[in-house]
Amino acid sequence: MKKIRLFTPGPCTVPEEVLIEMARPFEHHRTAWFKELFAECTTQLKQIFLTANDVLIFTGSGTATAEGAIVGCNPTGSKILTIEGGKFGERWGKIADQFGIPAVRHKVEWGHAVEPGVIEDYLKKDPAITSVMVVHSETSTATACDLEAIGRVCRAHDRLLLADCITSAGALPLRIDDWGVDVAITGSQKALLLPPGLGFASVSERAWKVIEQNPQQSSFYLNYNQARKAAEKNDTPYTPAHLLVRGLRVALRMLLDEGLENAWKRVAAMANATRSAAQAMNVEVFSKSPSDSVTALNVPAGVDESKLRKALRDKYGIHTAGGQDHLSGKIVRFSHMGFIDSVDMLGCIGALEHTLFSLGHGFDVGAGVAAAQKVFVERT
Amino acid sequence: MKKIRLFTPGPCTVPEEVLIEMARPFEHHRTAWFKELFAECTTQLKQIFLTANDVLIFTGSGTATAEGAIVGCNPTGSKILTIEGGKFGERWGKIADQFGIPAVRHKVEWGHAVEPGVIEDYLKKDPAITSVMVVHSETSTATACDLEAIGRVCRAHDRLLLADCITSAGALPLRIDDWGVDVAITGSQKALLLPPGLGFASVSERAWKVIEQNPQQSSFYLNYNQARKAAEKNDTPYTPAHLLVRGLRVALRMLLDEGLENAWKRVAAMANATRSAAQAMNVEVFSKSPSDSVTALNVPAGVDESKLRKALRDKYGIHTAGGQDHLSGKIVRFSHMGFIDSVDMLGCIGALEHTLFSLGHGFDVGAGVAAAQKVFVERT
Repeated sequence: MKKIRLFTPGPCTVPEEVLIEMARPFEHHRTAWFKELFAECTTQLKQIFLTANDVLIFTGSGTATAEGAIVGCNPTGSKILTIEGGKFGERWGKIADQFGIPAVRHKVEWGHAVEPGVIEDYLKKDPAITSVMVVHSETSTATACDLEAIGRVCRAHDRLLLADCITSAGALPLRIDDWGVDVAITGSQKALLLPPGLGFASVSERAWKVIEQNPQQSSFYLNYNQARKAAEKNDTPYTPAHLLVRGLRVALRMLLDEGLENAWKRVAAMANATRSAAQAMNVEVFSKSPSDSVTALNVPAGVDESKLRKALRDKYGIHTAGGQDHLSGKIVRFSHMGFIDSVDMLGCIGALEHTLFSLGHGFDVGAGVAAAQKVFVERT
Repeated sequence: MKKIRLFTPGPCTVPEEVLIEMARPFEHHRTAWFKELFAECTTQLKQIFLTANDVLIFTGSGTATAEGAIVGCNPTGSKILTIEGGKFGERWGKIADQFGIPAVRHKVEWGHAVEPGVIEDYLKKDPAITSVMVVHSETSTATACDLEAIGRVCRAHDRLLLADCITSAGALPLRIDDWGVDVAITGSQKALLLPPGLGFASVSERAWKVIEQNPQQSSFYLNYNQARKAAEKNDTPYTPAHLLVRGLRVALRMLLDEGLENAWKRVAAMANATRSAAQAMNVEVFSKSPSDSVTALNVPAGVDESKLRKALRDKYGIHTAGGQDHLSGKIVRFSHMGFIDSVDMLGCIGALEHTLFSLGHGFDVGAGVAAAQKVFVERT
């Protein structure tokens, strides 16, 4: 018996109902059938983002969607502040560089969240900065920042706030309109119960004022103005992966039927249980500001990371993510996103506990699952 | 009973086996599992393109893939000649404009193919032209050009040849290496038996020499250099729609099991049968140089285009495409691509014949299907 259990922080487990939906007979995408799908998905995405802003749908990854936002929001004369505390933050800075957008690239130690006051200092000191790009949940380090406070800073200093919400939308508390996030981007393959292939962006009126006066932007396929024009007719400018949009409708219905705040609680319970179990097993949590959508654990001294992850995969079908760059071999990451809940997470923690014990790590067997169980009893 | 029959020139009918394959339990994309999938698909795509060149896989539409090619092959100092005889040719010129690439945009009357000699004249007269972009099969007008002859011209004058093979790869005779096509792009949702969401490009050594010395190109997500670097490890730089890649392997196996030349013959038989039936029903073929992958028929005088297409859809589940821009209401397009063969096409021609008769168009009932049948008997 081989069962695949995706605890990777994207792609995540997709409900069978969504996979089956995408296998059903389909029509062309320039039809009333697709327009209805598209309209419903747009409405659902607004409910996920808690926004009245426009929401755009792109065929491509989160990176594609972020590229469109960074290029669109930074016409000639702009300057972007990027906050880089991991692989994804660094990527957004690289995009600015690639397109010749002047960028202040602020580095944050991996595993730490940026202090909103630091962003405020930049904005006070450098009036040329027109936009700020932050990562709400930095997947590479399993670290979350205080996006709400950053939103207040950007509003107070009247700068555009772009946020990578790829592993926060649908998983962590996120209130686009209340927090004043101008562009929030996310991808289909994280908390939104879909396979990879679609990216989504909410865009505020403030952001549109910049984007729509930026006709010479270096974007065609990822051009936000074109995407908005088409979306007004429930359409896309270029051929979309329309079966993924079809799956999206079913996936978001499931998420919204659960209730957005209930989904946040489900995810938070799994994250808290995992952190609590780690402590009970003498394993450290890597991040100083852990995200609830993914937990990074330090591989204990004396334990071989590749053996640990291989055993989880081969014996239990549990797929995890390792560390990137200088964290390679040092951390293991477990997602709390996708079609998983406390039952799955407890099983996963049990497998981790069993494996750590087998690899000679010292702790009381049963302490991990017991600690996790206490969290679940309290929270669910 | 409601049966959907896609005779739209993309998306086309996808085999049930491909749809089911994509609904099966899946793993993460940074795994040996995916690398094996990716490697096999790359090999298969080379067999489809008849090339030893690198082949790249992008998550996005054919437009995305074309954008990456146009931008990558035209660094500062370049000049592109675009051949525009329909919606897609025009789009490639617009991309050049959007990115500030100097372009000579040669217009061709819709429904006509460019003469290779015309391209040669441009290349002789204007040494500044460094690349030529042509559409092999212009879907909007159902018109094919002589890509082989254009390849000879570009080789003789040492210019890069970029070809939109979106509705030719897998459908029309296409020999990338023999014909000297430097970059050929195509999409998943046409002849390659997959839903929309992936784009593919073959890239010659000549093209790489230009692309790799173009680090400042305005592409990040669609950057060919990054895609090649990742593809060398059977990977993608950014998260791919990996379930579509999984479906692709099954789809291309089916196509290659049929045999590429047999697939070309299957498509050509359907196109010839449709044109022959049209003549027998007093209906004109729009194009003066018809592509075999899609047939555009002029709507006969006295017949209402919307009534014709609506009847085909409502009564028979046959989805067709209308005309675009000034051809709107004047033509109906029938695809010969996807998971369809002579049996499907004869049924479709029968439905068209019945509908034309019901709408009062004058011809001998039965003449259409009989003419089609003669072609199929001869060719299949």
